[in-house]
Amino acid sequence: MTYEEMQAELEKRLKPSRFRHSLGVARTAARLAERFGQDAEQAQLAGLLHDCAREFPNDSLLAEAKKRGLPIGPVECSMPLLLHAPLGACRLGEVYGVRDPAVAQAIARHTVGGPQMTALDKIIWFADMIEPGRDYPQVERLRQLAREASLDEMLLAGLSESIIFVVQKGHLVHPNTVLARNEILLAR
Amino acid sequence: MTYEEMQAELEKRLKPSRFRHSLGVARTAARLAERFGQDAEQAQLAGLLHDCAREFPNDSLLAEAKKRGLPIGPVECSMPLLLHAPLGACRLGEVYGVRDPAVAQAIARHTVGGPQMTALDKIIWFADMIEPGRDYPQVERLRQLAREASLDEMLLAGLSESIIFVVQKGHLVHPNTVLARNEILLAR
Repeated sequence: MTYEEMQAELEKRLKPSRFRHSLGVARTAARLAERFGQDAEQAQLAGLLHDCAREFPNDSLLAEAKKRGLPIGPVECSMPLLLHAPLGACRLGEVYGVRDPAVAQAIARHTVGGPQMTALDKIIWFADMIEPGRDYPQVERLRQLAREASLDEMLLAGLSESIIFVVQKGHLVHPNTVLARNEILLAR
Repeated sequence: MTYEEMQAELEKRLKPSRFRHSLGVARTAARLAERFGQDAEQAQLAGLLHDCAREFPNDSLLAEAKKRGLPIGPVECSMPLLLHAPLGACRLGEVYGVRDPAVAQAIARHTVGGPQMTALDKIIWFADMIEPGRDYPQVERLRQLAREASLDEMLLAGLSESIIFVVQKGHLVHPNTVLARNEILLAR
């Protein structure tokens, strides 16, 4: 499939607002990749398809994840929506014929992060947080960091905001988000 | 050693402000234990001695912990001050002759929490956060919860405040704190 064909396929499968969000993440990821000397095409592709498993209704995510033998911890069990990330990494090959393991990993980790994140993982995680459609109090500060800070300092700020947001909402914090943030602090 | 002898021994080993803090935690822990139908004497003892390893200068905590074979993860390695908690559980027997494993566990976990916390663990953790000497913006709200909320709802609020505080300070979040908070949410 060409990039345009993937885009057309994705548009058929997602609701319009989510498709627009995906285009925003693709553009933002490409821009971040250029800034940080990474492969912009690969980042654009991962950005475009990061939410591809959102085609499934929320209440079928657990069953779809089980069908593919994905690891399901207590946090995922309680918040199955998180499974759209690793499930999206599976759908990448199943639907779009993409076999790039780096893209698959970035998509699998785009909600909660993970250990030893690659530059691509970090770019997709952060692009999802600041794409032009996002609107929340801290987003302009994070966009500024995307223009000025190092990749790790940018991600650290994003992970910190994410943890605070999740705690304030009364939701579970995924251990991988804390692990990803701690790794940056420990590597300083 | 009688309780009074332990108190006198502790006073010799800690600086005055930390000794006063320990008395505050002991009183607060006893009061919480009564409210939640737990052993008030045991809670008072754990509260009194929770910081007993603060007698060591910060820069010797790592060596003292290694000497006793305590587990030292990357977070403890980067923030050795955290080790005063498990080290305190060792000093409990070494200096004060206390052999109660429940008291030792509550002291070992009083900074970052842990999995499957007991009522005593929760009481000591929280008493440390709200004893009368504590003064920070959210402390009155937490004291109110200590009078009105269930043990778990009280602890959940404390753990949440603690995680937000640590993230805002730019410090490492200990995985056990997140685990303890998640366990409460998952048990609801």
